[in-house]
Amino acid sequence: MSAERVAYLGLGSMGLPMARRLLEAGYPVTVWNRHPDKAAALVSAGAHCAATPAEAVAAADVIFTMVADDAALETITLGEQGLLGAMRPGAIHASMSTILPATARRLAALHQAREVHYVAAPVFGRPDAAAAGRLWICRSGSPEAQARLAPLLGPLSQRQEDLGEDPGAANVLKLTGNFMIAAAIETMAEAYVFGEKNGLDPAWMAEFFGGTLFACPIYQNYGRFIAEGRFSPPGFRLALGRKDVQLVAETARASDVPMPFLATLVNRYAARVAKGGGDLDWTSIALDVAYDAGLDG
Amino acid sequence: MSAERVAYLGLGSMGLPMARRLLEAGYPVTVWNRHPDKAAALVSAGAHCAATPAEAVAAADVIFTMVADDAALETITLGEQGLLGAMRPGAIHASMSTILPATARRLAALHQAREVHYVAAPVFGRPDAAAAGRLWICRSGSPEAQARLAPLLGPLSQRQEDLGEDPGAANVLKLTGNFMIAAAIETMAEAYVFGEKNGLDPAWMAEFFGGTLFACPIYQNYGRFIAEGRFSPPGFRLALGRKDVQLVAETARASDVPMPFLATLVNRYAARVAKGGGDLDWTSIALDVAYDAGLDG
Amino acid sequence: MSAERVAYLGLGSMGLPMARRLLEAGYPVTVWNRHPDKAAALVSAGAHCAATPAEAVAAADVIFTMVADDAALETITLGEQGLLGAMRPGAIHASMSTILPATARRLAALHQAREVHYVAAPVFGRPDAAAAGRLWICRSGSPEAQARLAPLLGPLSQRQEDLGEDPGAANVLKLTGNFMIAAAIETMAEAYVFGEKNGLDPAWMAEFFGGTLFACPIYQNYGRFIAEGRFSPPGFRLALGRKDVQLVAETARASDVPMPFLATLVNRYAARVAKGGGDLDWTSIALDVAYDAGLDG
Amino acid sequence: MSAERVAYLGLGSMGLPMARRLLEAGYPVTVWNRHPDKAAALVSAGAHCAATPAEAVAAADVIFTMVADDAALETITLGEQGLLGAMRPGAIHASMSTILPATARRLAALHQAREVHYVAAPVFGRPDAAAAGRLWICRSGSPEAQARLAPLLGPLSQRQEDLGEDPGAANVLKLTGNFMIAAAIETMAEAYVFGEKNGLDPAWMAEFFGGTLFACPIYQNYGRFIAEGRFSPPGFRLALGRKDVQLVAETARASDVPMPFLATLVNRYAARVAKGGGDLDWTSIALDVAYDAGLDG
Repeated sequence: MSAERVAYLGLGSMGLPMARRLLEAGYPVTVWNRHPDKAAALVSAGAHCAATPAEAVAAADVIFTMVADDAALETITLGEQGLLGAMRPGAIHASMSTILPATARRLAALHQAREVHYVAAPVFGRPDAAAAGRLWICRSGSPEAQARLAPLLGPLSQRQEDLGEDPGAANVLKLTGNFMIAAAIETMAEAYVFGEKNGLDPAWMAEFFGGTLFACPIYQNYGRFIAEGRFSPPGFRLALGRKDVQLVAETARASDVPMPFLATLVNRYAARVAKGGGDLDWTSIALDVAYDAGLDG
Repeated sequence: MSAERVAYLGLGSMGLPMARRLLEAGYPVTVWNRHPDKAAALVSAGAHCAATPAEAVAAADVIFTMVADDAALETITLGEQGLLGAMRPGAIHASMSTILPATARRLAALHQAREVHYVAAPVFGRPDAAAAGRLWICRSGSPEAQARLAPLLGPLSQRQEDLGEDPGAANVLKLTGNFMIAAAIETMAEAYVFGEKNGLDPAWMAEFFGGTLFACPIYQNYGRFIAEGRFSPPGFRLALGRKDVQLVAETARASDVPMPFLATLVNRYAARVAKGGGDLDWTSIALDVAYDAGLDG
Repeated sequence: MSAERVAYLGLGSMGLPMARRLLEAGYPVTVWNRHPDKAAALVSAGAHCAATPAEAVAAADVIFTMVADDAALETITLGEQGLLGAMRPGAIHASMSTILPATARRLAALHQAREVHYVAAPVFGRPDAAAAGRLWICRSGSPEAQARLAPLLGPLSQRQEDLGEDPGAANVLKLTGNFMIAAAIETMAEAYVFGEKNGLDPAWMAEFFGGTLFACPIYQNYGRFIAEGRFSPPGFRLALGRKDVQLVAETARASDVPMPFLATLVNRYAARVAKGGGDLDWTSIALDVAYDAGLDG
Repeated sequence: MSAERVAYLGLGSMGLPMARRLLEAGYPVTVWNRHPDKAAALVSAGAHCAATPAEAVAAADVIFTMVADDAALETITLGEQGLLGAMRPGAIHASMSTILPATARRLAALHQAREVHYVAAPVFGRPDAAAAGRLWICRSGSPEAQARLAPLLGPLSQRQEDLGEDPGAANVLKLTGNFMIAAAIETMAEAYVFGEKNGLDPAWMAEFFGGTLFACPIYQNYGRFIAEGRFSPPGFRLALGRKDVQLVAETARASDVPMPFLATLVNRYAARVAKGGGDLDWTSIALDVAYDAGLDG
């Protein structure tokens, strides 16, 4: 069996290392990025670079997309020179962006009408995990397309999960997870300011809780950033975190789920952006928690 | 050197297994409990049972107390037949209850005035961890008293932390930790209802997140309770959890720390108690999250 | 000078009495409604009834629209047989619906491109005030168009306000006002449950505060509804109130304004709708406040 | 019948003008204040000045107290040289301070045990209303004592309300009212920042809403302060407003009433005090609302 021909669209801090790993795994890879200079290193390593989404996918069996938001995905999929119109019959679009479940469902229907496949495949993990092929990937869509996709996700992930046929399901899980991370960040920010104003050392607390009750990566890594006030360069830009929180809010609204913690987060991110902090790491909401408590912030 | 003589006051679900472990470790133990029938098994195993706090501590070198709240601790310490007036010179009172840091500081000063020692020694862990000697114990108070106390905490704990001389410090840490646990519970409750109303299975989500992003005991254990709706018999009564959350609120007020997540929790627990749910497990706030979203609850 | 020819599109509980007053004031009125049977009484009184928005406005100098939401307004304006394509040169579209300021600005630009006028003219007041010509009307848009519009608003209003040239400005004010009303409702709901659980009579409290500190219509009228638990038939359907609150939330997000009270309201309305209460009056959030406090609700 | 002999204890910005009005109404008045220099003007006008609470009330038929908080009231009532031990049989203590209903009930029982009367008589209104005898006064306690008290409240108030026999009832109403005022302030702060960031003028908005939907003193007066940023000198110090909000929170906790708006206020006041703003007017929470939205604040 010959290798599937791959297209990878969107070479940001997550997409770039994933495209590279597919290339290194031996797949023929065509890439596309809004700013084509991002593709240079991959081209040196053997990738082809296409001028448009349509051109990138014209010969591909499996197409990955990883872009900033719903609007960007819709543009490269449905816009002029978009990918959907150029997909080969039976090709698979593995959509890795963090988007609304509703958008995923709508796009999936449009793919189905053209007899091509849409699989939601959002990922958990930061750029270093992408480079190491250690992401957690959640898939949802038709079982056949998932089965064909799974081997290609192998070089990218430490674990894959099948969320079933609803193409929006994997996005629901991704949004749920990002909400939980954001809530853990706020929890630590409040907790460590509370401790600090009552005589404890935040760095020590982060170390203690990360080694006992909350001995898991989210609390360990983010706890350290918060305690040390290390918000730049950002691991995950606050403006993007805010986008995700708003996707949760929009989905909660559409499904009538009251979420008071989410409501606090919506306001935190609005305040951070209003104060000009959208380019810091999303843990920088801790600055406002501290400021509100009369600390330097 | 002969073994320290121990008194253990307060034989609830946490105190009882700790007293037993001290006895099994070879310490001579005198116990006291408001309802003396709780002492029977320990007496069979060799403990003495005293009729009053004062009698219990009269010959003790190290006194442990583990009671429900600040008021109970003040009563057995300062009330009629209270322990403080009966302590031997140089004896140590290791106070394990979850109380206000301010109460700890006040009691410590009263002990110092009588030339006896007060060490705050609150614990993290549930009754099964107490029975297994696997608690995490945080100590604060004078270095000398802590040094004498440490060996006796050995049979009770997997880890001890020295929080320094401020007798309130260990209580600050304990309250911080309980706030973080309560916030994690609310986070999961919101997250899993959000997922459920958007097509995912809560039990599967709890398993997934407990095995990936949040692979730590708090998320694993409480996540399971929430997903399965297992709220009775309670591991930790909601009424007690509410007490702790109110201690955090009182300390946050006294130190001027705005905490929006805490504010949500204050209301959650009030609602649960108002609806008659104080005797369920404290994860049962998930019932109200579900009910508010139109699920059975 | 001959009378301006008027078209009125949208004959709901607010539009119908306004169209009638314009007719009674002597203006020639053509009406349109999605369900044409609503027009019958007006036709008996001398109005013409058109089959489509385009037909309704074809001969009109001033066009009023009052529909449920942004989507409905866009449909009757820009959709097939929409009004915009059929407006006479120089005609004025007075848009009375509660919509996003951003929608108003976009529609205004589209009108300007066709050399017709868009004036935002949202109203404060309930159906009885509309029937009595006692609304408060806020206008924004070009001064010339406002000047021509003002006399026609006379029979509808006790007061008109000029908000300037930004076509979104009047909608900002309308959303601000609806937020303030919703917040007053929540305030009273919390206050009167607080009082009730501490021994006071809610009806007496509503009377007292409505006669002293808060002697204004919002507190007097809504306070009575809340205290008496009179939520049906609705004066203003909760589902519509929720729509407005979401418009505020969307505008707050776009302008980066953290609003904690708004966040509470977003959750309240989500809960009410999740529990099937979208058709009650929007004061019925008081049911959930009461229920959370252990009252019948 | 000869005039009742009056004692007035607590000559702050509210107590002083009330004592003066009683004097001007012809009652023989003995005053006491922690800082006796405050009494000078009243003594010039014919009042006696006592050295202790006990001395002040020794000959009095009706005793008014107006002090900062529960602790101050307990000290002057029950402390050394406190008033309760010195009251004449059958004398009435009219307690005007804003305190916990629970404190009122406890003090009432202690008065009853000594066969003297305790009537709760908290007031609504600011110092200018006190000086003009235009307060709203709420009374609760035994009907006989209320009946004897009512004529003396005449020169102080535009309206009296009988809240029944529960001595805590009037305090419940007072706390309810202060919560409602604080919530109206937060509502306006959020609303006017929302409007401002979307192009409207806050002063104009305050004028508009104060003249239409919210044409009542609270919105008119406080709205003007907020819109103009006039926070100093304070009409009502934020630190005192915070005290009141905490009394509501404590009473809500004791009666199991979840109050999300209250929770927001608790955090607002904590932040203001943490930032050193306790001496500004309590409308100055608007500074933080503005700052969070990226405005100057």
